[in-house]
Amino acid sequence: MNTIGKILALTTFGESHGPAMGGVLDGMPAGVDIDLDRLQQFVDRRRTGQTAGSSQRDEKDRVEVLSGICQGKTLGTPIGFIVRNTDARSADYEQLANCYRPNHADYTWEVKYGIRDPRGGGRASARETVARVVAGGIAMQALNRLGITVVACRDAKSCVSTEELQQVMADGDTVGGIIECVIKGVPAGLGEPLFGKLHAQLAAAMMSIPSVHGFEYGDGFEMASKRGSEVVDQFVKREDGTIGTKTNHSGGIQGGISNGEDITMRIAFKPVPTLMQEVPTIDREGNPVTLQPRGRHDACVLQRALPIVEAMAALVILDNFLIKKTNVL
Amino acid sequence: MNTIGKILALTTFGESHGPAMGGVLDGMPAGVDIDLDRLQQFVDRRRTGQTAGSSQRDEKDRVEVLSGICQGKTLGTPIGFIVRNTDARSADYEQLANCYRPNHADYTWEVKYGIRDPRGGGRASARETVARVVAGGIAMQALNRLGITVVACRDAKSCVSTEELQQVMADGDTVGGIIECVIKGVPAGLGEPLFGKLHAQLAAAMMSIPSVHGFEYGDGFEMASKRGSEVVDQFVKREDGTIGTKTNHSGGIQGGISNGEDITMRIAFKPVPTLMQEVPTIDREGNPVTLQPRGRHDACVLQRALPIVEAMAALVILDNFLIKKTNVL
Amino acid sequence: MNTIGKILALTTFGESHGPAMGGVLDGMPAGVDIDLDRLQQFVDRRRTGQTAGSSQRDEKDRVEVLSGICQGKTLGTPIGFIVRNTDARSADYEQLANCYRPNHADYTWEVKYGIRDPRGGGRASARETVARVVAGGIAMQALNRLGITVVACRDAKSCVSTEELQQVMADGDTVGGIIECVIKGVPAGLGEPLFGKLHAQLAAAMMSIPSVHGFEYGDGFEMASKRGSEVVDQFVKREDGTIGTKTNHSGGIQGGISNGEDITMRIAFKPVPTLMQEVPTIDREGNPVTLQPRGRHDACVLQRALPIVEAMAALVILDNFLIKKTNVL
Amino acid sequence: MNTIGKILALTTFGESHGPAMGGVLDGMPAGVDIDLDRLQQFVDRRRTGQTAGSSQRDEKDRVEVLSGICQGKTLGTPIGFIVRNTDARSADYEQLANCYRPNHADYTWEVKYGIRDPRGGGRASARETVARVVAGGIAMQALNRLGITVVACRDAKSCVSTEELQQVMADGDTVGGIIECVIKGVPAGLGEPLFGKLHAQLAAAMMSIPSVHGFEYGDGFEMASKRGSEVVDQFVKREDGTIGTKTNHSGGIQGGISNGEDITMRIAFKPVPTLMQEVPTIDREGNPVTLQPRGRHDACVLQRALPIVEAMAALVILDNFLIKKTNVL
Repeated sequence: MNTIGKILALTTFGESHGPAMGGVLDGMPAGVDIDLDRLQQFVDRRRTGQTAGSSQRDEKDRVEVLSGICQGKTLGTPIGFIVRNTDARSADYEQLANCYRPNHADYTWEVKYGIRDPRGGGRASARETVARVVAGGIAMQALNRLGITVVACRDAKSCVSTEELQQVMADGDTVGGIIECVIKGVPAGLGEPLFGKLHAQLAAAMMSIPSVHGFEYGDGFEMASKRGSEVVDQFVKREDGTIGTKTNHSGGIQGGISNGEDITMRIAFKPVPTLMQEVPTIDREGNPVTLQPRGRHDACVLQRALPIVEAMAALVILDNFLIKKTNVL
Repeated sequence: MNTIGKILALTTFGESHGPAMGGVLDGMPAGVDIDLDRLQQFVDRRRTGQTAGSSQRDEKDRVEVLSGICQGKTLGTPIGFIVRNTDARSADYEQLANCYRPNHADYTWEVKYGIRDPRGGGRASARETVARVVAGGIAMQALNRLGITVVACRDAKSCVSTEELQQVMADGDTVGGIIECVIKGVPAGLGEPLFGKLHAQLAAAMMSIPSVHGFEYGDGFEMASKRGSEVVDQFVKREDGTIGTKTNHSGGIQGGISNGEDITMRIAFKPVPTLMQEVPTIDREGNPVTLQPRGRHDACVLQRALPIVEAMAALVILDNFLIKKTNVL
Repeated sequence: MNTIGKILALTTFGESHGPAMGGVLDGMPAGVDIDLDRLQQFVDRRRTGQTAGSSQRDEKDRVEVLSGICQGKTLGTPIGFIVRNTDARSADYEQLANCYRPNHADYTWEVKYGIRDPRGGGRASARETVARVVAGGIAMQALNRLGITVVACRDAKSCVSTEELQQVMADGDTVGGIIECVIKGVPAGLGEPLFGKLHAQLAAAMMSIPSVHGFEYGDGFEMASKRGSEVVDQFVKREDGTIGTKTNHSGGIQGGISNGEDITMRIAFKPVPTLMQEVPTIDREGNPVTLQPRGRHDACVLQRALPIVEAMAALVILDNFLIKKTNVL
Repeated sequence: MNTIGKILALTTFGESHGPAMGGVLDGMPAGVDIDLDRLQQFVDRRRTGQTAGSSQRDEKDRVEVLSGICQGKTLGTPIGFIVRNTDARSADYEQLANCYRPNHADYTWEVKYGIRDPRGGGRASARETVARVVAGGIAMQALNRLGITVVACRDAKSCVSTEELQQVMADGDTVGGIIECVIKGVPAGLGEPLFGKLHAQLAAAMMSIPSVHGFEYGDGFEMASKRGSEVVDQFVKREDGTIGTKTNHSGGIQGGISNGEDITMRIAFKPVPTLMQEVPTIDREGNPVTLQPRGRHDACVLQRALPIVEAMAALVILDNFLIKKTNVL
């Protein structure tokens, strides 16, 4: 349940206010060079306190690799890693132990497990994504060696400017936005044609990121209002003899399998649910309560989410790259 | 790769022009009453030739259950079933054996496997969905006994009217559209909070349906342009003592776990890729070819896709209902 | 639960007295030549009525392949197949519907599922193994192309002679025995070193065959009474430059990974549990009942079990051959 | 590949001479009391240096739980844990980096991955079992609350006495032996009747322990030389109304499902492969080399293996206890 991937499988653990977050990346091929400094830089991109609108919680997020990499090379064994939680102020959360914050997982979590981490959001915290970024950063280095790159950016149209964000923060409010992601250099032939369509795997991976409410690839929802004749991706033989398409309405995936064009997708994030305003809600017995603004929270997570999106994309693509090897004897 | 689900696991097989489509639904609880006539009626909803704009291929689609159900009750054993292919005209496809149809899986499939079913689309055909509908129809009967219902319908705004569809067909063109799906009666507490978020599982299931290009739940992509204060789902204690929310921007899922409200989602379908027009493309050697309009194809699949969407939703919800049982000792 | 294998995954279904047994073999590489006549011959080896001491139930066991193989080649898609049950005499089982036969699964099945197939052993019948043999026979043809062979035979010391078997039958009694299996030509490097040790996978596969009570590989249980110095498999460089071992106490597997030597194992079968004698037992209410000898049953299953053992071995080895491809980038 | 279990899933990581061993136990039910002191005591049972014939390597093996347990109760989230490697003397292994030790995984590992941990056995070390014991110790506490106990002991007949062991050590030699394990209090109805037979799962779990060469349950290999009439486990209705069997040749499992009787099994361990003698072998180029006795190694691992066997049994039983909950709606 806390594992994603078939051959390249990531399992994560950790509560927001426990001793550490961590994970195990199993199935990494052996003999791949991993630059741990570059990995740390990748992980640092999701840290808080770096951009306007992000939480002031200061986590060093130092990645500690415990296995699977020796003398800069993967061994083929599972890569265990942890990132310590060094700045957890559980006291900030005491008032919340008996309340259900709206649009959070407090209520649903309690119904599901009959128990809830009293120290804060517990595992239902965006802090869990640090483990995804560590693992995705490792996968990314392998992909880069194969000539595959992944870049996510904020969709300018859907995202507020930094000035607008200042106003949002002054209002004690929050915003969401859309992230676009492009994967370049993926060879044709990756993805499983039925339930494991490449875009279905990408959708599952992206929708599993906290706050994501929508996913589309290629022309996405716009496809629904087009005629078939408007979105034909004509095949062409290129001068170098390879086959490609003139346009890319399909977003680099046809029949669930990559066709060699850029894989394009868009991911919609809801606004951050924790407001810096008084919020009326109820407690466990159903009594009305007013939550006071406390703690340190992001007004917008889009910038910090970029490496998370890239990490999840990298994990999916590398997994499918490995699965592809088994399609022939 | 042709399996979906963890406890309730569906594995399907079958090529469009082979002897039969089929599947195995494993993990169905024992002792559940299954009405096979009602199952056949559910499956009949996806048949061709029933609505304007759908393919004239006439498949009886009679469901043959081979195991797992005895005297109207599930045994707890895997439910094997087949649906014979009775009206396959492979000859219609002969011209296609060496060509790559645009927006189809011909090219990607061939790169992946090095071989392609010469008898038509093979497994890369929407005909594979008949097995999903059989299995989903069985799961649906179990859900209904639990008071859970699933209803999909075409989004009126995004879909063409029947008159417009006549024009589309006269033009030899095709359309897509958006399907809305609502799941009612889901108890709070279903879904896995990390990679297996309920909406991530639903997204993967829906995105695995042929032609789907986008998925959103709750307010979906619109969430991205809202402020946090605009989409707060306030908790309320209802008169019957249960806890609910006043609004449902969250689409019945919070933190990846159902909260007891209606689960709402929207699924975007691209236009049918096979046009009844001359289509320029290339063959295996890269030579230009013109495909002539032939065969029997849908101009719009939305109506036929409704039971497919419902089936996939039913499989996901029942699987999570079963997984939920393991959360406590 | 009815699936085995990671990349090459077999899912089976079917009750002994239902319409058909069947399965889906997913993950078979594409482009492999499959000779269906040879497959039928392999399956025929497990049929009843062929050797002394085997059940007189006459099943034609004609394999019907429904997908995944076209024009003699695998397509890379799941191979669905069925074998009809043509000679099921449920009436023979009527007296058993309320009784628990000793050493059978009647009681445990009923506790587990709360329901039991009233038509005989249901899925708890050795008849389910026909689906294993079909799938294993397909895997075997792929292995043979790779130069890998699997041969099972009865261990002469542990098995009764045919004359002794006549006496056993005259007594209305039954026997078990030990099957030895040798896999030749397996390249070094197959198997997963932790939980998926090659011998652990083989053990699970063999122990899942009905009536099996023990598994050992290499020197097996005898290893337990030897000194370390007695069982050293010395490495040698052979004249052709390859590395091997002088002896093979390790049974071709070291650290859970094949070393290129013959893989050897032994599988212990208990005596057939159905006796042709009056057997005292109890019914569902706990009342004493005497079971009368009826039906058609084997006095010894060893000969029929040979292709089952070979089939399970073939599935495990081919799966690990495919997994091995993912160990490097 | 480094994961075992379906609902209760253990993933482990760690090399013998890396910073730490560890694991993630996912799927533990929520709200279970866990006594960490008792867990530490369970883990201490497998430590070295405690009994005659065991390695003098001194590992404190302090269990550090990083997540999933809060205020003495499981949260339902994955339980991440590590055990630091504090006494790793890689220098002892330098001579081995280019040699293949007989009956070890040096050669097979190198063929599989193309790379081998230069710091010692790496992951192919019995040290990996510490993570199994931590996870199994947690599962055991849950089982005990359900009235289920697991006890492993050395089979006196097959194991050397401590005086004999002194002679073995004086000879620089090693021994193996047989461990018997009994699981009491398992309710009837656990286990999956096809590929996941309870004894098949137990076999896979036990065979995955380093040095294990054989597994049997109930009367095991002796079954093979018995007549059916000799091993009938007669059903009886006990005075308390429950159903049981008079004898237990079946070892508590019938048709792959527990029947409520004691589950009994025997596991055969080969002698420790590292001898305190000069051992001739070859290096990577095939040149003859003589290994000098160095390092700290066990002459017999049976005593230390007891908690490992118990741990693996506990993991399998608890997993099947949880799966059982999904058999009915």
